[in-house]
Amino acid sequence: MKLIHFDDVPLETVSIEGAKNVKLRWLISDKDNAPNFALRMFELEAGGFTPFHTHNWEHEVFVIQGTGILVTEDGEKDFQQWDVIYTDPNIYHQFKNSGDSMLRFLCAIPIDSYLKPQKQSTKNPLGDEPENNC
Amino acid sequence: MKLIHFDDVPLETVSIEGAKNVKLRWLISDKDNAPNFALRMFELEAGGFTPFHTHNWEHEVFVIQGTGILVTEDGEKDFQQWDVIYTDPNIYHQFKNSGDSMLRFLCAIPIDSYLKPQKQSTKNPLGDEPENNC
Repeated sequence: MKLIHFDDVPLETVSIEGAKNVKLRWLISDKDNAPNFALRMFELEAGGFTPFHTHNWEHEVFVIQGTGILVTEDGEKDFQQWDVIYTDPNIYHQFKNSGDSMLRFLCAIPIDSYLKPQKQSTKNPLGDEPENNC
Repeated sequence: MKLIHFDDVPLETVSIEGAKNVKLRWLISDKDNAPNFALRMFELEAGGFTPFHTHNWEHEVFVIQGTGILVTEDGEKDFQQWDVIYTDPNIYHQFKNSGDSMLRFLCAIPIDSYLKPQKQSTKNPLGDEPENNC
């Protein structure tokens, strides 16, 4: 069992190529003995974005704070606080901060996506570190 | 792909015995073709609580709004907005609203917990509907 405030979880820089001004916190993961999925918080400063990329696992996202743009091959969609976003496996996606302040969102992924990564299914034109990304 | 505001997701009453003033929204689930885990939002009015119960799957919780108390066999712990809670499989747990206003939290569960339920592993002294509960 774990009960912790979000800002007591270490904030790590996302250094993958194609990302700008992105940090994340691994709120719950296999290190807590979670058996199935990990819950992360992403923090994108104004002007920040994740890379436009794809992989063979899903994202389940909830927007905590701020505004952003979801980019897929179907175009761009604005999102706001308390929006819910589901991206299917194998679709290209990118999250951008569209506001003047911090964008924070939760993003849950299967633990197998990083403990048993299938690199051949990751298509990021700019990098190959899928587990530390959204 | 899905992008929706939380309050456009239907709000359902949690009718399981032992729960009081609890509603939930299935933000992302197998109905969206999510393959591994479901993301729900629970809404507990002032005075509301989930049953003290256990089951063989985990909860990954993030507190969106309000204050509450997590009850386990080890006692009670207060929680607040933007706290993170992980409850391991097979521990007794209960969530209570300790404030005067709405408590909202996200709770993610494995999809197998309700698509392939193992009723014999659910121990709720007051009910037997684990999938619609937290």
